[in-house]
Amino acid sequence: MPSDLLYRLTAHEAASAIAAGRTTSEALVRACLERIEARERTVGAWSFLSPEAALAAARACDRQPARGPLHGVPVAIKDVIDTADMPTAYGSPARASHQPEADAACVALLREAGAVILGKTVSTEYAAVTPGKTVNPHSAAHSPGGSSSGSAAAVADGMVPAALGTQTVGSTIRPASFCGAVGFKASFGTFSLKGVHAQAESLDTLGILTRSVEDIVLLGGVLLGEPDAFAAAPLARAPRFAFCPTPHWPRAEPATVEAMREARQRLSDAGAAVDDMAADPTFDRVLEDALEAQWLVLRFEFARAMSFERTARRETLSAALCKLLDDGLRITASTYRSAQQHLATARAMATDRLAPFDAVLTPAAAGEAPVGAGAPTDLLFQRLWTGLRLPAITLPGLVGPQGLPVGVQMVGKANEDAALLAVAGWSAPHFAP
Amino acid sequence: MPSDLLYRLTAHEAASAIAAGRTTSEALVRACLERIEARERTVGAWSFLSPEAALAAARACDRQPARGPLHGVPVAIKDVIDTADMPTAYGSPARASHQPEADAACVALLREAGAVILGKTVSTEYAAVTPGKTVNPHSAAHSPGGSSSGSAAAVADGMVPAALGTQTVGSTIRPASFCGAVGFKASFGTFSLKGVHAQAESLDTLGILTRSVEDIVLLGGVLLGEPDAFAAAPLARAPRFAFCPTPHWPRAEPATVEAMREARQRLSDAGAAVDDMAADPTFDRVLEDALEAQWLVLRFEFARAMSFERTARRETLSAALCKLLDDGLRITASTYRSAQQHLATARAMATDRLAPFDAVLTPAAAGEAPVGAGAPTDLLFQRLWTGLRLPAITLPGLVGPQGLPVGVQMVGKANEDAALLAVAGWSAPHFAP
Repeated sequence: MPSDLLYRLTAHEAASAIAAGRTTSEALVRACLERIEARERTVGAWSFLSPEAALAAARACDRQPARGPLHGVPVAIKDVIDTADMPTAYGSPARASHQPEADAACVALLREAGAVILGKTVSTEYAAVTPGKTVNPHSAAHSPGGSSSGSAAAVADGMVPAALGTQTVGSTIRPASFCGAVGFKASFGTFSLKGVHAQAESLDTLGILTRSVEDIVLLGGVLLGEPDAFAAAPLARAPRFAFCPTPHWPRAEPATVEAMREARQRLSDAGAAVDDMAADPTFDRVLEDALEAQWLVLRFEFARAMSFERTARRETLSAALCKLLDDGLRITASTYRSAQQHLATARAMATDRLAPFDAVLTPAAAGEAPVGAGAPTDLLFQRLWTGLRLPAITLPGLVGPQGLPVGVQMVGKANEDAALLAVAGWSAPHFAP
Repeated sequence: MPSDLLYRLTAHEAASAIAAGRTTSEALVRACLERIEARERTVGAWSFLSPEAALAAARACDRQPARGPLHGVPVAIKDVIDTADMPTAYGSPARASHQPEADAACVALLREAGAVILGKTVSTEYAAVTPGKTVNPHSAAHSPGGSSSGSAAAVADGMVPAALGTQTVGSTIRPASFCGAVGFKASFGTFSLKGVHAQAESLDTLGILTRSVEDIVLLGGVLLGEPDAFAAAPLARAPRFAFCPTPHWPRAEPATVEAMREARQRLSDAGAAVDDMAADPTFDRVLEDALEAQWLVLRFEFARAMSFERTARRETLSAALCKLLDDGLRITASTYRSAQQHLATARAMATDRLAPFDAVLTPAAAGEAPVGAGAPTDLLFQRLWTGLRLPAITLPGLVGPQGLPVGVQMVGKANEDAALLAVAGWSAPHFAP
């Protein structure tokens, strides 16, 4: 296999090539490291990388019998996720030298399946406000999106076939849309978050970033401790989508309006049904309340989860983060409980309204990536679905007027992640560039 | 205040005495340390204790203006909860020297409210199978119950007025019942678990152990970042209980059968209504399924959360724990999802069936503490309510035929923890010895 193309393999292709003896883990990791060497100065996706350690891990894989479905495949880990052999700074410069004593459960499961942990990728400060050094790999003038900035940029740029991120608001779907990666957040509660820095524990989810839907299925199974857990039979018929513009639609930029038009067209041409959701002022109001509630719940929980940082490490936090936490601490438990009740109502209603459909078709972000690595992170179009605890995936392929990626988001039913991935797998070829 | 009685103060009494200048944090901590000095060789409640550090923290409180509602009050922390200044071994001898780099959120919130963290209390191995050194403070031949063994024993024995524990099955209610403490687990999701060793993330809850219901209200408010969050107005009328024997009732020992009879009598005499739940074979079957589902969910999630320990630290785990984890890893995601659906059904049905009542009255454990510190931990009577995610409290005061405590458990409605505590506060005087 020509070594200058190796870095472009998906995780599934790479695992197959290694298993068949067509390449080695060492060659693959070397190809990724060469790509990083060529591009990292521009993109800034990595917060920690030890080429020697990665190559040593790859050589160890090559000497051993196959351990699992990711044997020898490099995977990157967002820097808010603990690694026993690499520093974990949670996106905070003050924590740069922090070395966890254990791997997060998700990292241990990846290693158990044979993955080579390539390095740590840039996160915003504690997966919240202050952006890191990463820029959009398609244009250094543009934001990569956050908070899983480095994971999205590294995967989209060919530095690594797969990476882990997190999502509490829109931290996987948004950067995946901006950078042009496949980004997936599972139904709430699907994956263990042990060893992942908590932000809002009733919303936090692990994210997976790859270059193919097949790789989401592969990594998702590994993270569940059951390789085939997310593998569904191919669809027997074309899927039926509900197009849901969400209460944010008036703020969608022309790039997103056009991408949604194009997506509907391509999916319809391929045989899918794409129905507008029936006008339903009650549901609309419930969704608006859910958006408000999601934001309130996040701030309440974040302020409490970060109590050690908020008190003992206060001087290491940015002013914006301190303000977010202090404001959150003033939200009363009674207001919080009401917000959780709103979300429970919205979840039940969404289950009902989405029943006739295979998936929701909806924008992944307000538009193309905004200008500036530190551009204000738009919080639109992702957080509703996170608040509803539904599985969501964004597919790349469409391009906006500035030549930057515009993702197409599909949202599934609660805990029917394999079904959503089957729909996404059916759809993805129709967005191929 | 006579110093030989100081150790008997509740947290609320201690905080008031310090605030009024009737005692000092140093005197209080010294009294607790003297009690520990006298009793620890027998009871074995502590996994880490530094008298010098505790006294220094107390003296620092005495020099400062009051920081919060627990100013100067000593609190103990179960050893599965991280502390930045004390080792945290998670009940595993192999981890004895492990020093976390941060406090768990709950510990930071206690400190923010002025508490003196007195030391760490014994847990079973990773809050699961293998018991620690603690014995029942009422009889060294008997089990303290697990997994929050040290927290329950220390509080019941007067070594510290309050302690944190955890509950995923019955790890707070059971040892509180056996040792004769007040034990409370909040509704699932009430408190941040950041920095608490995860066992089964869809079931894990923080526990609070004290010697009065008032202290549960006090610590619960602090842990929510809002001191009055759990303070409800006193009941305007006597409460109405549903007596729920649960599907485990045939396995209740005479001590528990008699305690339930006595509890019903005392509550009725005090003016409460105690109704038998109407015969309902459908609900009974759903509860039986929920018990099965709770156990399956626990094993599925525990095996995945413990992936680093299960792989990289396998040689440090007991054989029983390895087996539990390996068995759990073989449960499929599809079986797990079905179990979660069972639990969701049971939760909805319980909400419906419990609506007419203020609280459920139900056994806290199968009987008095069994013989042997390492006696098999009974898993009866607690885990149904944990699986249903309901708030639960056990009240001490009743005594079995061997002279050991038998708790009386009350279970409230989801997220109506303050209402349950009001009922428990009304009830507690009727169980006073």
